[in-house]
Amino acid sequence: MGRQKVYLEKLSEFFHIRNLLLRQALAECLGTLILVMFGCGAVAQLVLSSGSHGMFLTVNFAFGFAATLGILVCGQISGGHLNPAVTFALCLLGRERWRKFPMYFLFQTIGAFFGAAIIFGMYYDALWDHPGSFNMTGPNNTAGIFATYPGKHLTIVNGFFDQIIGTAALIVCILAIVDPYNNPIPQGLEAFTVGFVVLVIGLSMGFNSGYAVNPARDLGPRIFTSLAGWGTGVFTARNGWFLVPIFAPFLGTIIGVMIYQLMVGFHVEGEIRDRNRREEENVRLTNVATNEHSKEATKEMH
Amino acid sequence: MGRQKVYLEKLSEFFHIRNLLLRQALAECLGTLILVMFGCGAVAQLVLSSGSHGMFLTVNFAFGFAATLGILVCGQISGGHLNPAVTFALCLLGRERWRKFPMYFLFQTIGAFFGAAIIFGMYYDALWDHPGSFNMTGPNNTAGIFATYPGKHLTIVNGFFDQIIGTAALIVCILAIVDPYNNPIPQGLEAFTVGFVVLVIGLSMGFNSGYAVNPARDLGPRIFTSLAGWGTGVFTARNGWFLVPIFAPFLGTIIGVMIYQLMVGFHVEGEIRDRNRREEENVRLTNVATNEHSKEATKEMH
Amino acid sequence: MGRQKVYLEKLSEFFHIRNLLLRQALAECLGTLILVMFGCGAVAQLVLSSGSHGMFLTVNFAFGFAATLGILVCGQISGGHLNPAVTFALCLLGRERWRKFPMYFLFQTIGAFFGAAIIFGMYYDALWDHPGSFNMTGPNNTAGIFATYPGKHLTIVNGFFDQIIGTAALIVCILAIVDPYNNPIPQGLEAFTVGFVVLVIGLSMGFNSGYAVNPARDLGPRIFTSLAGWGTGVFTARNGWFLVPIFAPFLGTIIGVMIYQLMVGFHVEGEIRDRNRREEENVRLTNVATNEHSKEATKEMH
Amino acid sequence: MGRQKVYLEKLSEFFHIRNLLLRQALAECLGTLILVMFGCGAVAQLVLSSGSHGMFLTVNFAFGFAATLGILVCGQISGGHLNPAVTFALCLLGRERWRKFPMYFLFQTIGAFFGAAIIFGMYYDALWDHPGSFNMTGPNNTAGIFATYPGKHLTIVNGFFDQIIGTAALIVCILAIVDPYNNPIPQGLEAFTVGFVVLVIGLSMGFNSGYAVNPARDLGPRIFTSLAGWGTGVFTARNGWFLVPIFAPFLGTIIGVMIYQLMVGFHVEGEIRDRNRREEENVRLTNVATNEHSKEATKEMH
Repeated sequence: MGRQKVYLEKLSEFFHIRNLLLRQALAECLGTLILVMFGCGAVAQLVLSSGSHGMFLTVNFAFGFAATLGILVCGQISGGHLNPAVTFALCLLGRERWRKFPMYFLFQTIGAFFGAAIIFGMYYDALWDHPGSFNMTGPNNTAGIFATYPGKHLTIVNGFFDQIIGTAALIVCILAIVDPYNNPIPQGLEAFTVGFVVLVIGLSMGFNSGYAVNPARDLGPRIFTSLAGWGTGVFTARNGWFLVPIFAPFLGTIIGVMIYQLMVGFHVEGEIRDRNRREEENVRLTNVATNEHSKEATKEMH
Repeated sequence: MGRQKVYLEKLSEFFHIRNLLLRQALAECLGTLILVMFGCGAVAQLVLSSGSHGMFLTVNFAFGFAATLGILVCGQISGGHLNPAVTFALCLLGRERWRKFPMYFLFQTIGAFFGAAIIFGMYYDALWDHPGSFNMTGPNNTAGIFATYPGKHLTIVNGFFDQIIGTAALIVCILAIVDPYNNPIPQGLEAFTVGFVVLVIGLSMGFNSGYAVNPARDLGPRIFTSLAGWGTGVFTARNGWFLVPIFAPFLGTIIGVMIYQLMVGFHVEGEIRDRNRREEENVRLTNVATNEHSKEATKEMH
Repeated sequence: MGRQKVYLEKLSEFFHIRNLLLRQALAECLGTLILVMFGCGAVAQLVLSSGSHGMFLTVNFAFGFAATLGILVCGQISGGHLNPAVTFALCLLGRERWRKFPMYFLFQTIGAFFGAAIIFGMYYDALWDHPGSFNMTGPNNTAGIFATYPGKHLTIVNGFFDQIIGTAALIVCILAIVDPYNNPIPQGLEAFTVGFVVLVIGLSMGFNSGYAVNPARDLGPRIFTSLAGWGTGVFTARNGWFLVPIFAPFLGTIIGVMIYQLMVGFHVEGEIRDRNRREEENVRLTNVATNEHSKEATKEMH
Repeated sequence: MGRQKVYLEKLSEFFHIRNLLLRQALAECLGTLILVMFGCGAVAQLVLSSGSHGMFLTVNFAFGFAATLGILVCGQISGGHLNPAVTFALCLLGRERWRKFPMYFLFQTIGAFFGAAIIFGMYYDALWDHPGSFNMTGPNNTAGIFATYPGKHLTIVNGFFDQIIGTAALIVCILAIVDPYNNPIPQGLEAFTVGFVVLVIGLSMGFNSGYAVNPARDLGPRIFTSLAGWGTGVFTARNGWFLVPIFAPFLGTIIGVMIYQLMVGFHVEGEIRDRNRREEENVRLTNVATNEHSKEATKEMH
C-alpha cells in the first residue's frame, strides 16, 4: 500500500498540467465528451433498436442527465459550460475573460467529436446491422444519431428562429441558476438544475430539429460523421443547415442575456448595490467598523 | 475587460426599476412566460408530431419542471407564484398584501400570453404542416396546444368540480411546502417540490380537461389563440368552458386553504404559539435574557 | 391587513386541537388522503383514458411522488408514515409507542377512503362514460382503480409471498433512511427518498397484484368501492383476496425489520455503543468534562 | 415499552458482529441484493407482462434508483460499491485496501444471487404462466431477466468493447462524484448522483447487451439461473458470453481511472498540493500557527 501511494503521487506530479487555461480546456473537453457520449448514445439506442430500447423521452432524459454529469465531472475546474453559447453568455456579462471563449469552443468541439466517436465504436455492429446505415437521407437515417437535421416541415427561417428561442430559453434559465446576486438553489445543485433545463428544452422544443442549442455539440459529431463514412453530405444537407446550429445559438445567447438582465438581473444587482451604498454611508456616519466585521463573520458561517 | 465592466454597470443602473411592485410583477411575468412556454411547447410537440416526439407523460414532466424553472428564475424577487390562485391563497393567509393580487394576476396573464406566442412562432411551420391547423374542433385540434378544453365525456358541473379539486390539491401541497411553521424541506428546494406537485397533478388529474388549475396559464394563451387565427371560437367552445379555469381555481384555493389550515396549519402554529408563551413566562420568571440570545445565535448558525 | 391577521389568529386559536395524538392522527389522515388521491387518480387516468393519458409508469411515478408529498404535508406533525406497516415497524423497534398503532391505522384508512372518494367524484362522468363501469370483473374492470386485485396468473400463495417481499423491501429501505445511527441522506430529503422507494417497488414488483404493500391504502378505497356501487364483490373476489394486502404486509414488516437489523442496523448501533463506552471510559480516566462539551457544541453546529 | 427496549438492546449486543471487514461485506451483500432485486424485478415485470407493465425505460429507472437505494442502505458501513469494478477502481487509487477486493467481490456476488432468487420466487407463477419459461433461447427468452445476453447483431469483440466503454463511463463519473479533491455535490447526495449515472448508462448504452458493467450483478444471477432450471446453457450461450461481463469491466475500470486522473484528477490534486506547499512555506516564514488553527475551525463550521 505504501509503495502504491508513492507511485501514485509520482504519477500525479508527472501529469499535473500547470497551465490553468489548458487544464480548464481539458476539463471542458471531458465534460462535453460525456454530454455527447450519453446524449448521442441515447439517440443511437432509439434509432438502432427501432424504438424497442428507447423513445424521444429517453433521449431527453439522457441529454439532461448527461449535462448534469458532464458539469459534475469538470465543473470545479472549468465551470462546466459544455456549450460555447454558455461561455459566450458569461463573457458578455463580464464573468469570464474573452480569451477563454475560443479555447473553450475548440476543446468543447473536440470533446463532442470524441464523444461521437465512442458511440460510433460502441454501436459499430448495430450500425452495420441497421438497414440503411451510412446512408444519410431516407427513412432509416443514421446520421441524425450524431448531428441534428431539421424536420421535413421546417423552413430555414423557422429553423433559425427555433435555435434562437431554444438557446435564449437555455441561457435565461442558466443565468438565473448561476447569478451570484439571485441565488435560488443550494450550492452544489446547479448541475442538477441545468440538467433539468436541458431536459425541459428537449421535452418542449425538440420536434423541429432536435434542439442542438449548442454549436460544439452539433459541430463536433458532424465533423466526425463526415470522416466516418457519411461523407460531405452532412454539411450540404438541407442547403447548409449545419450553419444554423453554429450561428443561431450565439444570437439566442445575446437575446437570452438581454431578457434575463432586463427583467430580473439588473434589478437584483441594483437592489444589492443600493443596499451596499446605504450600508457604506451608515458606516461612514457612525464609523463603527466592528459592526461590519461581525456581519461578515455571520455570513461566512452560513 | 475593465471597460466592459463599466459599461455593464452603467446599463444596470439605467435599467434598474426602483418600484418594488413593478419589479416583482415583471419577474412574475417572466416566470409565467417560462412555465407556459415550456408547458405548452410540450403539448405542441406531442400534438404536432402526432405522438412520435411526445406523450402525455412528457407534457406532465414539462409542466412540472417548467414550474420549477419559472420559480427559480423569479422566486427571489417576486416569490415565484406563477399562478393567481397561489397569490390568492397567500393573500387569504395574510402572507402577501391584497394589492399585489390584481397586479400579479395581470402580469402572470401577460407572461402566459407571450409564452404561448413564442411557442406559436417556434412551431409556425409545423402548425401549417399539421392537418387541420387553425381548426379548433375536430380530431386534429390544435387550439388545445395553448388553452385547455374539456374532454368529450365531461359535463360542465364535473369540469367545475375537477378544477376545484385540482387547485385545492395544488394549494394544500404548496402551503405545506412554504408554511413557515411547518418547514419540511431544505431551503432552496421549494421550487423543485412545487414542480413535483404540478407533475403529480398532471399524472393523476389531467384526463378530464388538461389540469389548468391556473387562471393566468389558461386565459393568457386563450386570448393569444383568439388573436392568432383560431378566432372567438376559443371562448364560445363548450358553452363558455373558458370561464371554468378562471373561476373554479379560486374556489378550489379557498377549500385548499381551509383543509390545510384545519388539518395541519393551525396545529403547527398553535404549538409554536404555546411554546413561545411558555418561554415568555419562563423568561419573565427567571429574567435571564442571555439565555434567549444564545438560543437565537444557535438558530442563526443553522 | 391588520384586521385580517387578528381574525386569522382567532381562527387558529379556535381550531387548534390540543390533544397531540389526535392532531397526529389527523395529519396522517391528510397525508394518506394525498397518497391515495394522487395514486389512485393516476390509475383512474390510465384506465379511463384507455391508455392515452397514462401508462403503468405514470402510475408508478404518481404513487412515488404522492408518497413524497403526503410525507411533506404531515411529516413534521405525525412522522409521515402513511402506512400501518411503517407504523408497525417503528413500534417493533421501540421508536414509536404501541398505542399509536391502532389510532394511526384507523386514520390512515379513513384518509385512504376519502382519497378514493375524491377521485370517484372527480372522474364521475368518465366512469359512467367508460364501457363496463361499476363492473368489477371483465376486461374493462374499474374496481382496480381503487383497490388492488391479483393478476390472472397469480395463486393466493404466491400473492401472499408477493406482498411479504414487497413490504419487506419497503421496510428495509425506509429503516435505512430513517435510522438515527445510519444517517445517509441530508435532513429534509427523507420524503423524497421514500418516494423513490415506492417508485422503484412499483417499477419492479407491480405486475403480480399492483403493489399495495400498505393495508390502509388498500382497505380504505376497497370499503369505498363497496359502498359506491361495486358491491360486496370487492371483498369476495378471488376467494377473499382483500385479506392478503391487509395481513401479508405486517408479516413482511417483521421480516424486513429482521433483515435490516441483522445485516446493518445492529452493527451501526453496536459501533456507536462501543465508541460511546470508550469515550465514557476516557472521560472517567482523564476527567476532562470540558472536552465533551466542546464536542457537543461542534455537533450542534453541523 | 421499557422491557421492549431492554430486549432490543440485548438482541443488538448479541448479533453485533465485531469484525469490521465481515460487517462491511455483509452490508455490501445487502446493498447488491437490493440493486439486483429491484433491477432484475423490473426486467421480469417488463418481460412477463409482455410490455403492459414496463418498457426499457422502466428498467433503466429501476436499476438507477435501485443503485441509489442500495448505496443508501449500506453506504455508511461499507462505502456502497455494489460493484467489484468500483471496489477495484478505489483500490487502484489507493483509497481502499486490496484485501477488501476479493471479500467484497464474493459478498456482492452472493447478494446478487439472492436478489435474483427473491425475484424468481416473487414471479414464480408468472414465470410458469409465461410462454417459453425456463427456455433460454427463442423469442420468449426468460433467462435474460436475470443475467445479460448479447443482442443478435453483436460480435464478441464489439461486446467486449461495449462493456469496457460502459464501465469506463461509469467509473469516470463515480470518481468525479467521490473524489475528495473535486467535491462537486453536497454531502449525502452521492447515492442519488450514482443512481443518475446508472440510469444514463442504461438510456444510452443498453441496446447492445443490457449494460451489466458489473461482474457481480451478472455472475450471481447467472449462477442462480443455472441452478433454478435454465441449466448450463446460461454459461455456454453465445460462445461463453458470460466471461465478457466478468472480465471486460475490470479493463474498463483501468481505462476509466486513467482518463479521469489524466484529464481531471491529477490536476485537482496537484493544485491542492501546490497550495498546501505554499501555505506550509508561509507558515514556516511567519511562524504564525494561530492562523492555521482559525482556518481549520472555519472549515469545520462549514
